[in-house]
Amino acid sequence: MNCLDGKTVHIGGIAKGSGMINPNMATMLSFVTTDVAISEACLQSVLKEVADETYNMITIDGDTSTNDMFGILANGLAGNKEITDKGFDYLNFKAALKDVCTTLSKMLAKDGEGATKLLTAHVTGAASIKDARNVALSVIGSNLLKCAMFGHDANWGRILCAIGYADAQLDINKVNVALQSSWGSIPVCQDGHGIAFSEEDALELLKDDEIEIEVTLHDGEYEATAWGCDLTYEYVKINGEYRT
Amino acid sequence: MNCLDGKTVHIGGIAKGSGMINPNMATMLSFVTTDVAISEACLQSVLKEVADETYNMITIDGDTSTNDMFGILANGLAGNKEITDKGFDYLNFKAALKDVCTTLSKMLAKDGEGATKLLTAHVTGAASIKDARNVALSVIGSNLLKCAMFGHDANWGRILCAIGYADAQLDINKVNVALQSSWGSIPVCQDGHGIAFSEEDALELLKDDEIEIEVTLHDGEYEATAWGCDLTYEYVKINGEYRT
Repeated sequence: MNCLDGKTVHIGGIAKGSGMINPNMATMLSFVTTDVAISEACLQSVLKEVADETYNMITIDGDTSTNDMFGILANGLAGNKEITDKGFDYLNFKAALKDVCTTLSKMLAKDGEGATKLLTAHVTGAASIKDARNVALSVIGSNLLKCAMFGHDANWGRILCAIGYADAQLDINKVNVALQSSWGSIPVCQDGHGIAFSEEDALELLKDDEIEIEVTLHDGEYEATAWGCDLTYEYVKINGEYRT
Repeated sequence: MNCLDGKTVHIGGIAKGSGMINPNMATMLSFVTTDVAISEACLQSVLKEVADETYNMITIDGDTSTNDMFGILANGLAGNKEITDKGFDYLNFKAALKDVCTTLSKMLAKDGEGATKLLTAHVTGAASIKDARNVALSVIGSNLLKCAMFGHDANWGRILCAIGYADAQLDINKVNVALQSSWGSIPVCQDGHGIAFSEEDALELLKDDEIEIEVTLHDGEYEATAWGCDLTYEYVKINGEYRT
Protein backbone atom coordinates (compact mmCIF):
# COMPACT_ATOMS: atom_id res chain seq x y z
CA MET A 1 0.00 0.00 0.00
CA ASN A 2 0.91 3.67 0.07
CA CYS A 3 3.56 4.86 2.44
CA LEU A 4 2.55 6.31 5.76
CA ASP A 5 4.97 8.67 7.39
CA GLY A 6 7.67 7.47 4.97
CA LYS A 7 7.20 3.83 5.96
CA THR A 8 5.69 1.12 3.76
CA VAL A 9 2.67 -0.51 5.36
CA HIS A 10 1.45 -3.97 4.40
CA ILE A 11 -2.05 -5.41 4.48
CA GLY A 12 -2.97 -9.06 3.94
CA GLY A 13 -6.51 -10.41 3.82
CA ILE A 14 -8.44 -13.64 3.36
CA ALA A 15 -12.18 -14.31 3.29
CA LYS A 16 -14.58 -17.22 2.94
CA GLY A 17 -18.11 -17.11 1.37
CA SER A 18 -20.16 -18.39 -0.40
CA GLY A 19 -23.89 -18.44 0.38
CA MET A 20 -26.07 -15.99 2.27
CA ILE A 21 -23.84 -13.04 3.43
CA ASN A 22 -26.85 -10.80 4.00
CA PRO A 23 -27.52 -8.35 5.47
CA ASN A 24 -24.27 -8.14 7.40
CA MET A 25 -21.61 -10.65 6.41
CA ALA A 26 -23.26 -13.84 7.60
CA THR A 27 -22.12 -16.49 6.80
CA MET A 28 -18.81 -14.90 5.93
CA LEU A 29 -15.46 -14.95 7.67
CA SER A 30 -12.63 -12.54 6.91
CA PHE A 31 -9.31 -11.99 8.60
CA VAL A 32 -6.97 -9.14 7.81
CA THR A 33 -3.47 -8.56 9.12
CA THR A 34 -1.38 -5.42 8.84
CA ASP A 35 1.81 -4.00 10.26
CA VAL A 36 0.43 -0.49 10.58
CA ALA A 37 0.78 1.32 13.89
CA ILE A 38 -2.71 2.48 14.85
CA SER A 39 -4.63 3.02 18.09
CA GLU A 40 -7.20 0.44 19.08
CA ALA A 41 -10.01 3.01 18.77
CA CYS A 42 -8.94 4.04 15.27
CA LEU A 43 -8.52 0.42 14.18
CA GLN A 44 -12.04 -0.43 15.40
CA SER A 45 -13.43 2.63 13.65
CA VAL A 46 -11.74 1.96 10.32
CA LEU A 47 -12.83 -1.69 10.49
CA LYS A 48 -16.47 -0.65 10.91
CA GLU A 49 -16.32 1.99 8.18
CA VAL A 50 -14.74 -0.38 5.67
CA ALA A 51 -17.09 -3.25 6.59
CA ASP A 52 -20.08 -1.01 5.90
CA GLU A 53 -18.71 -0.15 2.45
CA THR A 54 -17.58 -3.64 1.44
CA TYR A 55 -18.61 -6.85 3.23
CA ASN A 56 -21.93 -5.40 4.38
CA MET A 57 -22.76 -4.57 0.76
CA ILE A 58 -22.73 -8.16 -0.50
CA THR A 59 -25.77 -10.36 -0.89
CA ILE A 60 -25.87 -13.82 -2.41
CA ASP A 61 -29.42 -15.02 -1.89
CA GLY A 62 -30.88 -12.67 0.69
CA ASP A 63 -30.46 -15.27 3.38
CA THR A 64 -28.30 -14.96 6.43
CA SER A 65 -26.55 -17.18 8.93
CA THR A 66 -25.33 -17.21 12.49
CA ASN A 67 -21.62 -17.36 11.84
CA ASP A 68 -19.78 -14.27 10.75
CA MET A 69 -16.61 -12.42 11.61
CA PHE A 70 -14.40 -9.71 10.25
CA GLY A 71 -11.25 -9.40 12.34
CA ILE A 72 -8.15 -7.29 11.89
CA LEU A 73 -4.79 -7.61 13.62
CA ALA A 74 -2.24 -4.77 13.58
CA ASN A 75 1.17 -5.25 15.15
CA GLY A 76 2.67 -1.81 14.47
CA LEU A 77 5.94 -3.14 13.03
CA ALA A 78 5.78 -0.83 9.99
CA GLY A 79 7.22 1.84 12.25
CA ASN A 80 4.94 4.66 11.11
CA LYS A 81 3.85 7.31 13.58
CA GLU A 82 0.87 5.71 15.31
CA ILE A 83 -2.47 6.74 13.81
CA THR A 84 -4.52 8.19 16.65
CA ASP A 85 -7.03 10.44 14.88
CA LYS A 86 -8.99 10.62 11.63
CA GLY A 87 -6.39 12.68 9.77
CA PHE A 88 -4.61 12.08 6.49
CA ASP A 89 -2.89 8.86 7.58
CA TYR A 90 -6.18 7.41 8.78
CA LEU A 91 -7.84 8.15 5.44
CA ASN A 92 -4.85 6.79 3.56
CA PHE A 93 -4.88 3.55 5.54
CA LYS A 94 -8.65 3.29 5.17
CA ALA A 95 -8.38 3.60 1.38
CA ALA A 96 -5.84 0.78 1.27
CA LEU A 97 -7.87 -1.44 3.59
CA LYS A 98 -10.98 -0.76 1.51
CA ASP A 99 -9.09 -1.81 -1.62
CA VAL A 100 -8.25 -5.15 -0.02
CA CYS A 101 -11.79 -5.75 1.26
CA THR A 102 -13.40 -4.64 -2.01
CA THR A 103 -11.29 -7.14 -3.92
CA LEU A 104 -12.28 -9.88 -1.47
CA SER A 105 -15.95 -8.83 -1.62
CA LYS A 106 -16.01 -9.15 -5.39
CA MET A 107 -14.31 -12.55 -5.19
CA LEU A 108 -16.88 -13.70 -2.61
CA ALA A 109 -19.83 -12.54 -4.72
CA LYS A 110 -18.48 -14.04 -7.92
CA ASP A 111 -17.96 -17.31 -6.04
CA GLY A 112 -21.55 -17.27 -4.72
CA GLU A 113 -23.43 -20.54 -4.74
CA GLY A 114 -24.14 -21.56 -8.31
CA ALA A 115 -23.09 -18.17 -9.71
CA THR A 116 -21.93 -17.75 -13.29
CA LYS A 117 -21.22 -14.03 -12.96
CA LEU A 118 -20.45 -11.14 -10.65
CA LEU A 119 -23.10 -8.43 -10.50
CA THR A 120 -22.22 -4.96 -9.30
CA ALA A 121 -24.78 -2.24 -8.64
CA HIS A 122 -23.27 1.23 -8.48
CA VAL A 123 -25.66 3.94 -7.34
CA THR A 124 -24.79 7.63 -7.57
CA GLY A 125 -26.69 10.84 -6.95
CA ALA A 126 -28.56 9.62 -3.87
CA ALA A 127 -29.95 12.00 -1.26
CA SER A 128 -28.25 10.07 1.58
CA ILE A 129 -25.77 7.26 2.07
CA LYS A 130 -28.61 5.12 3.43
CA ASP A 131 -30.63 5.69 0.26
CA ALA A 132 -27.64 4.88 -1.93
CA ARG A 133 -26.95 1.62 -0.07
CA ASN A 134 -30.60 0.55 0.05
CA VAL A 135 -31.07 1.08 -3.68
CA ALA A 136 -27.85 -0.77 -4.54
CA LEU A 137 -28.74 -3.72 -2.28
CA SER A 138 -32.32 -3.80 -3.55
CA VAL A 139 -31.19 -4.04 -7.18
CA ILE A 140 -28.54 -6.65 -6.48
CA GLY A 141 -30.92 -8.69 -4.31
CA SER A 142 -33.79 -9.01 -6.80
CA ASN A 143 -34.40 -12.65 -7.71
CA LEU A 144 -36.00 -11.56 -10.97
CA LEU A 145 -33.01 -9.45 -11.99
CA LYS A 146 -30.61 -12.22 -10.93
CA CYS A 147 -32.46 -14.64 -13.22
CA ALA A 148 -32.45 -12.11 -16.07
CA MET A 149 -28.68 -11.66 -15.75
CA PHE A 150 -28.25 -15.44 -15.85
CA GLY A 151 -30.28 -15.44 -19.05
CA HIS A 152 -28.40 -12.46 -20.61
CA ASP A 153 -31.64 -10.50 -20.67
CA ALA A 154 -31.38 -6.70 -20.54
CA ASN A 155 -34.62 -6.46 -18.61
CA TRP A 156 -34.22 -2.92 -17.30
CA GLY A 157 -37.82 -2.92 -16.07
CA ARG A 158 -36.75 -5.30 -13.31
CA ILE A 159 -34.00 -2.86 -12.31
CA LEU A 160 -36.46 0.04 -12.16
CA CYS A 161 -38.82 -2.16 -10.19
CA ALA A 162 -36.14 -2.96 -7.59
CA ILE A 163 -35.18 0.71 -7.38
CA GLY A 164 -38.83 1.54 -6.87
CA TYR A 165 -39.37 -0.84 -3.96
CA ALA A 166 -36.12 0.06 -2.21
CA ASP A 167 -36.46 1.80 1.14
CA ALA A 168 -35.24 5.13 -0.23
CA GLN A 169 -36.43 8.61 -1.16
CA LEU A 170 -36.14 9.16 -4.89
CA ASP A 171 -37.95 10.50 -7.94
CA ILE A 172 -38.29 7.71 -10.45
CA ASN A 173 -38.58 10.29 -13.23
CA LYS A 174 -34.97 11.35 -12.65
CA VAL A 175 -33.47 7.86 -12.72
CA ASN A 176 -30.94 6.81 -15.34
CA VAL A 177 -29.74 3.22 -15.75
CA ALA A 178 -26.93 1.79 -17.86
CA LEU A 179 -25.53 -1.72 -18.21
CA GLN A 180 -21.76 -2.17 -18.40
CA SER A 181 -19.25 -4.92 -18.92
CA SER A 182 -15.87 -5.31 -20.57
CA TRP A 183 -17.84 -5.20 -23.86
CA GLY A 184 -18.84 -1.57 -23.17
CA SER A 185 -21.79 0.40 -21.85
CA ILE A 186 -25.44 0.59 -22.92
CA PRO A 187 -27.83 3.17 -21.46
CA VAL A 188 -31.19 1.46 -21.07
CA CYS A 189 -33.21 4.02 -19.13
CA GLN A 190 -33.20 7.81 -18.94
CA ASP A 191 -35.42 9.97 -16.73
CA GLY A 192 -37.31 6.83 -15.77
CA HIS A 193 -38.16 5.93 -19.35
CA GLY A 194 -36.76 3.23 -21.59
CA ILE A 195 -34.24 4.08 -24.30
CA ALA A 196 -34.18 2.18 -27.57
CA PHE A 197 -31.11 -0.07 -27.71
CA SER A 198 -29.88 -3.01 -29.71
CA GLU A 199 -30.93 -6.30 -28.13
CA GLU A 200 -28.07 -7.98 -29.97
CA ASP A 201 -25.52 -5.60 -28.45
CA ALA A 202 -27.07 -6.08 -25.02
CA LEU A 203 -26.81 -9.85 -25.40
CA GLU A 204 -23.10 -9.53 -26.18
CA LEU A 205 -22.57 -7.16 -23.26
CA LEU A 206 -24.37 -9.50 -20.85
CA LYS A 207 -22.39 -12.57 -21.89
CA ASP A 208 -19.51 -11.20 -19.82
CA ASP A 209 -18.93 -12.75 -16.41
CA GLU A 210 -18.84 -9.36 -14.72
CA ILE A 211 -21.82 -7.02 -15.18
CA GLU A 212 -22.19 -3.57 -13.67
CA ILE A 213 -25.53 -1.87 -13.27
CA GLU A 214 -25.05 1.89 -13.15
CA VAL A 215 -27.90 3.75 -11.47
CA THR A 216 -28.00 7.54 -11.27
CA LEU A 217 -30.71 9.03 -9.09
CA HIS A 218 -30.00 12.77 -9.60
CA ASP A 219 -31.22 13.42 -6.08
CA GLY A 220 -28.01 14.27 -4.23
CA GLU A 221 -24.32 13.59 -3.77
CA TYR A 222 -24.16 10.15 -2.15
CA GLU A 223 -23.12 6.91 -3.76
CA ALA A 224 -22.77 3.22 -2.89
CA THR A 225 -21.78 -0.05 -4.48
CA ALA A 226 -23.23 -3.50 -3.82
CA TRP A 227 -22.08 -6.85 -5.11
CA GLY A 228 -23.95 -10.06 -5.82
CA CYS A 229 -24.38 -12.78 -8.40
CA ASP A 230 -26.92 -14.32 -10.73
CA LEU A 231 -29.56 -16.91 -9.75
CA THR A 232 -29.01 -20.15 -11.60
CA TYR A 233 -30.13 -23.77 -11.94
CA GLU A 234 -26.97 -24.66 -10.03
CA TYR A 235 -28.03 -22.55 -7.06
CA VAL A 236 -31.30 -24.48 -6.87
CA LYS A 237 -29.39 -27.74 -7.22
CA ILE A 238 -26.85 -26.89 -4.51
CA ASN A 239 -29.55 -25.87 -2.04
CA GLY A 240 -32.36 -28.18 -3.11
CA GLU A 241 -30.67 -31.46 -3.86
CA TYR A 242 -27.57 -31.62 -1.77
CA ARG A 243 -28.96 -34.47 0.29
CA THR A 244 -30.33 -36.50 -2.59
CA MET B 1 -71.88 -17.80 3.15
CA ASN B 2 -73.65 -17.60 6.49
CA CYS B 3 -76.90 -15.77 6.69
CA LEU B 4 -76.94 -12.16 7.79
CA ASP B 5 -80.12 -10.91 9.31
CA GLY B 6 -81.92 -14.02 7.98
CA LYS B 7 -80.82 -13.33 4.40
CA THR B 8 -78.32 -15.40 2.42
CA VAL B 9 -75.39 -13.32 1.21
CA HIS B 10 -73.23 -14.35 -1.72
CA ILE B 11 -69.56 -13.62 -2.41
CA GLY B 12 -67.72 -14.33 -5.65
CA GLY B 13 -64.01 -13.77 -6.20
CA ILE B 14 -61.33 -14.12 -8.85
CA ALA B 15 -57.60 -13.41 -8.72
CA LYS B 16 -54.58 -13.51 -10.99
CA GLY B 17 -50.93 -14.19 -9.92
CA SER B 18 -48.30 -15.56 -10.47
CA GLY B 19 -44.88 -13.93 -9.84
CA MET B 20 -43.81 -11.32 -7.35
CA ILE B 21 -46.86 -10.43 -5.13
CA ASN B 22 -44.63 -8.93 -2.45
CA PRO B 23 -44.86 -7.06 -0.19
CA ASN B 24 -48.37 -5.95 -0.94
CA MET B 25 -50.14 -7.80 -3.74
CA ALA B 26 -48.08 -6.60 -6.66
CA THR B 27 -48.38 -7.95 -9.36
CA MET B 28 -51.69 -9.38 -8.34
CA LEU B 29 -55.23 -8.48 -9.36
CA SER B 30 -58.32 -9.61 -7.50
CA PHE B 31 -61.95 -8.67 -7.91
CA VAL B 32 -64.69 -9.69 -5.52
CA THR B 33 -68.41 -9.16 -5.88
CA THR B 34 -71.07 -9.57 -3.25
CA ASP B 35 -74.74 -8.78 -2.77
CA VAL B 36 -74.32 -7.78 0.87
CA ALA B 37 -75.76 -4.44 2.03
CA ILE B 38 -72.89 -2.57 3.71
CA SER B 39 -71.86 1.05 4.10
CA GLU B 40 -68.99 2.32 1.99
CA ALA B 41 -66.86 2.95 5.09
CA CYS B 42 -67.42 -0.56 6.42
CA LEU B 43 -66.76 -2.10 3.02
CA GLN B 44 -63.48 -0.21 2.72
CA SER B 45 -62.50 -1.24 6.24
CA VAL B 46 -63.27 -4.92 5.79
CA LEU B 47 -61.41 -4.91 2.45
CA LYS B 48 -58.28 -3.55 4.13
CA GLU B 49 -58.48 -5.94 7.08
CA VAL B 50 -58.93 -8.99 4.88
CA ALA B 51 -56.20 -7.87 2.44
CA ASP B 52 -53.73 -7.60 5.33
CA GLU B 53 -54.55 -11.15 6.44
CA THR B 54 -54.61 -12.76 3.00
CA TYR B 55 -53.24 -11.15 -0.19
CA ASN B 56 -50.64 -9.11 1.71
CA MET B 57 -49.31 -12.32 3.26
CA ILE B 58 -48.26 -13.94 -0.02
CA THR B 59 -44.76 -13.85 -1.45
CA ILE B 60 -43.56 -15.68 -4.54
CA ASP B 61 -40.01 -14.48 -5.05
CA GLY B 62 -39.69 -11.37 -2.90
CA ASP B 63 -40.03 -9.17 -5.93
CA THR B 64 -42.77 -6.69 -6.56
CA SER B 65 -44.42 -4.94 -9.47
CA THR B 66 -46.26 -1.80 -10.31
CA ASN B 67 -49.65 -3.27 -11.09
CA ASP B 68 -51.89 -4.43 -8.32
CA MET B 69 -55.51 -4.14 -7.32
CA PHE B 70 -58.00 -5.66 -4.94
CA GLY B 71 -61.46 -4.34 -5.61
CA ILE B 72 -64.82 -5.26 -4.15
CA LEU B 73 -68.29 -4.40 -5.41
CA ALA B 74 -71.36 -4.71 -3.20
CA ASN B 75 -74.82 -4.06 -4.61
CA GLY B 76 -76.91 -4.66 -1.47
CA LEU B 77 -79.41 -6.97 -3.19
CA ALA B 78 -79.19 -9.62 -0.45
CA GLY B 79 -81.66 -7.48 1.47
CA ASN B 80 -79.93 -7.76 4.84
CA LYS B 81 -80.00 -4.83 7.22
CA GLU B 82 -77.14 -2.62 6.02
CA ILE B 83 -73.92 -3.19 7.94
CA THR B 84 -72.88 0.19 9.31
CA ASP B 85 -70.67 -0.67 12.28
CA LYS B 86 -68.21 -3.35 13.36
CA GLY B 87 -70.76 -5.50 15.12
CA PHE B 88 -71.67 -9.15 14.72
CA ASP B 89 -72.76 -8.86 11.08
CA TYR B 90 -69.52 -7.10 10.15
CA LEU B 91 -67.44 -9.86 11.73
CA ASN B 92 -69.59 -12.53 10.12
CA PHE B 93 -69.19 -10.96 6.69
CA LYS B 94 -65.47 -10.47 7.26
CA ALA B 95 -65.02 -14.16 8.10
CA ALA B 96 -66.76 -15.18 4.88
CA LEU B 97 -64.77 -12.70 2.79
CA LYS B 98 -61.56 -13.92 4.41
CA ASP B 99 -62.48 -17.49 3.50
CA VAL B 100 -62.82 -16.50 -0.14
CA CYS B 101 -59.56 -14.51 -0.20
CA THR B 102 -57.63 -17.19 1.71
CA THR B 103 -58.68 -19.79 -0.83
CA LEU B 104 -57.58 -17.50 -3.67
CA SER B 105 -54.30 -16.67 -1.87
CA LYS B 106 -53.41 -20.34 -1.58
CA MET B 107 -54.27 -20.90 -5.24
CA LEU B 108 -52.07 -17.95 -6.23
CA ALA B 109 -49.11 -19.16 -4.17
CA LYS B 110 -49.41 -22.75 -5.40
CA ASP B 111 -49.52 -21.41 -8.95
CA GLY B 112 -46.38 -19.28 -8.39
CA GLU B 113 -43.82 -19.24 -11.19
CA GLY B 114 -42.19 -22.65 -11.44
CA ALA B 115 -43.69 -23.85 -8.17
CA THR B 116 -44.19 -27.54 -7.41
CA LYS B 117 -45.79 -26.98 -4.03
CA LEU B 118 -47.67 -24.60 -1.77
CA LEU B 119 -45.81 -23.55 1.38
CA THR B 120 -47.71 -22.21 4.36
CA ALA B 121 -46.04 -20.68 7.41
CA HIS B 122 -48.32 -20.51 10.43
CA VAL B 123 -46.92 -18.56 13.35
CA THR B 124 -48.56 -18.58 16.78
CA GLY B 125 -47.61 -17.19 20.18
CA ALA B 126 -46.20 -13.91 18.87
CA ALA B 127 -45.96 -10.79 21.05
CA SER B 128 -47.71 -8.67 18.39
CA ILE B 129 -49.50 -9.08 15.08
CA LYS B 130 -46.56 -7.35 13.38
CA ASP B 131 -44.13 -9.86 14.86
CA ALA B 132 -46.33 -12.77 13.80
CA ARG B 133 -46.62 -11.49 10.24
CA ASN B 134 -42.93 -10.63 9.91
CA VAL B 135 -41.84 -14.07 11.12
CA ALA B 136 -44.29 -15.85 8.80
CA LEU B 137 -43.21 -13.78 5.77
CA SER B 138 -39.53 -14.18 6.63
CA VAL B 139 -39.81 -17.97 6.75
CA ILE B 140 -41.87 -18.19 3.58
CA GLY B 141 -39.55 -15.78 1.74
CA SER B 142 -36.25 -17.55 2.40
CA ASN B 143 -34.63 -18.68 -0.84
CA LEU B 144 -32.71 -21.34 1.06
CA LEU B 145 -35.83 -22.78 2.65
CA LYS B 146 -37.68 -22.62 -0.68
CA CYS B 147 -34.90 -24.67 -2.28
CA ALA B 148 -34.92 -27.15 0.61
CA MET B 149 -38.66 -27.66 0.23
CA PHE B 150 -38.20 -28.28 -3.50
CA GLY B 151 -35.59 -30.91 -2.57
CA HIS B 152 -37.76 -32.53 0.17
CA ASP B 153 -35.13 -31.61 2.74
CA ALA B 154 -36.31 -31.14 6.33
CA ASN B 155 -33.68 -28.48 6.93
CA TRP B 156 -35.15 -26.93 10.06
CA GLY B 157 -31.96 -24.89 10.59
CA ARG B 158 -32.99 -22.72 7.64
CA ILE B 159 -36.37 -22.15 9.27
CA LEU B 160 -34.76 -21.12 12.56
CA CYS B 161 -32.40 -18.88 10.60
CA ALA B 162 -35.28 -17.09 8.86
CA ILE B 163 -37.10 -16.72 12.18
CA GLY B 164 -33.91 -15.27 13.65
CA TYR B 165 -33.45 -12.60 11.00
CA ALA B 166 -37.11 -11.57 10.91
CA ASP B 167 -37.86 -8.07 12.15
CA ALA B 168 -39.52 -9.32 15.33
CA GLN B 169 -39.02 -9.56 19.09
CA LEU B 170 -38.65 -13.16 20.15
CA ASP B 171 -36.65 -15.54 22.31
CA ILE B 172 -35.17 -18.20 20.06
CA ASN B 173 -34.92 -20.54 23.07
CA LYS B 174 -38.71 -20.70 23.25
CA VAL B 175 -39.32 -21.49 19.58
CA ASN B 176 -40.94 -24.75 18.47
CA VAL B 177 -41.16 -25.80 14.82
CA ALA B 178 -43.07 -28.65 13.21
CA LEU B 179 -43.51 -29.70 9.58
CA GLN B 180 -46.94 -30.82 8.41
CA SER B 181 -48.59 -32.19 5.32
CA SER B 182 -51.37 -34.62 4.52
CA TRP B 183 -48.86 -37.32 5.55
CA GLY B 184 -48.88 -36.04 9.14
CA SER B 185 -46.81 -33.84 11.43
CA ILE B 186 -43.17 -34.03 12.54
CA PRO B 187 -41.80 -31.78 15.30
CA VAL B 188 -38.28 -30.80 14.27
CA CYS B 189 -37.36 -28.16 16.83
CA GLN B 190 -38.30 -27.58 20.46
CA ASP B 191 -37.13 -24.69 22.66
CA GLY B 192 -34.79 -23.65 19.86
CA HIS B 193 -33.06 -27.02 19.72
CA GLY B 194 -33.32 -29.80 17.19
CA ILE B 195 -35.35 -32.91 17.92
CA ALA B 196 -34.31 -36.30 16.58
CA PHE B 197 -36.67 -37.40 13.80
CA SER B 198 -36.75 -39.94 11.02
CA GLU B 199 -35.28 -38.51 7.80
CA GLU B 200 -37.25 -41.16 5.89
CA ASP B 201 -40.53 -40.02 7.42
CA ALA B 202 -39.63 -36.39 6.75
CA LEU B 203 -38.93 -37.23 3.12
CA GLU B 204 -42.37 -38.81 2.78
CA LEU B 205 -44.01 -35.85 4.52
CA LEU B 206 -42.24 -33.36 2.24
CA LYS B 207 -43.21 -35.17 -0.97
CA ASP B 208 -46.69 -33.69 -0.56
CA ASP B 209 -47.56 -30.70 -2.72
CA GLU B 210 -48.79 -28.71 0.29
CA ILE B 211 -46.41 -28.21 3.21
CA GLU B 212 -47.17 -26.30 6.38
CA ILE B 213 -44.48 -24.94 8.65
CA GLU B 214 -45.84 -24.53 12.16
CA VAL B 215 -43.90 -22.04 14.28
CA THR B 216 -44.74 -21.41 17.93
CA LEU B 217 -42.95 -18.51 19.58
CA HIS B 218 -44.41 -18.78 23.13
CA ASP B 219 -44.11 -15.01 23.46
CA GLY B 220 -47.73 -13.87 23.28
CA GLU B 221 -51.18 -14.38 21.83
CA TYR B 222 -50.86 -13.22 18.22
CA GLU B 223 -50.76 -15.36 15.12
CA ALA B 224 -50.39 -15.00 11.36
CA THR B 225 -50.25 -17.12 8.24
CA ALA B 226 -48.19 -16.52 5.11
CA TRP B 227 -48.25 -18.39 1.83
CA GLY B 228 -45.56 -19.01 -0.76
CA CYS B 229 -44.00 -21.70 -2.89
CA ASP B 230 -40.75 -23.53 -3.51
CA LEU B 231 -37.84 -22.23 -5.61
CA THR B 232 -37.22 -24.52 -8.56
CA TYR B 233 -35.26 -24.98 -11.78
CA GLU B 234 -38.44 -23.98 -13.58
CA TYR B 235 -38.51 -20.61 -11.80
CA VAL B 236 -34.99 -19.88 -13.05
CA LYS B 237 -35.99 -21.02 -16.52
CA ILE B 238 -39.14 -18.89 -16.64
CA ASN B 239 -37.32 -15.78 -15.51
CA GLY B 240 -33.90 -16.41 -17.01
CA GLU B 241 -34.56 -17.90 -20.39
CA TYR B 242 -37.90 -16.62 -21.55
CA ARG B 243 -36.30 -14.62 -24.33
CA THR B 244 -33.90 -17.29 -25.52
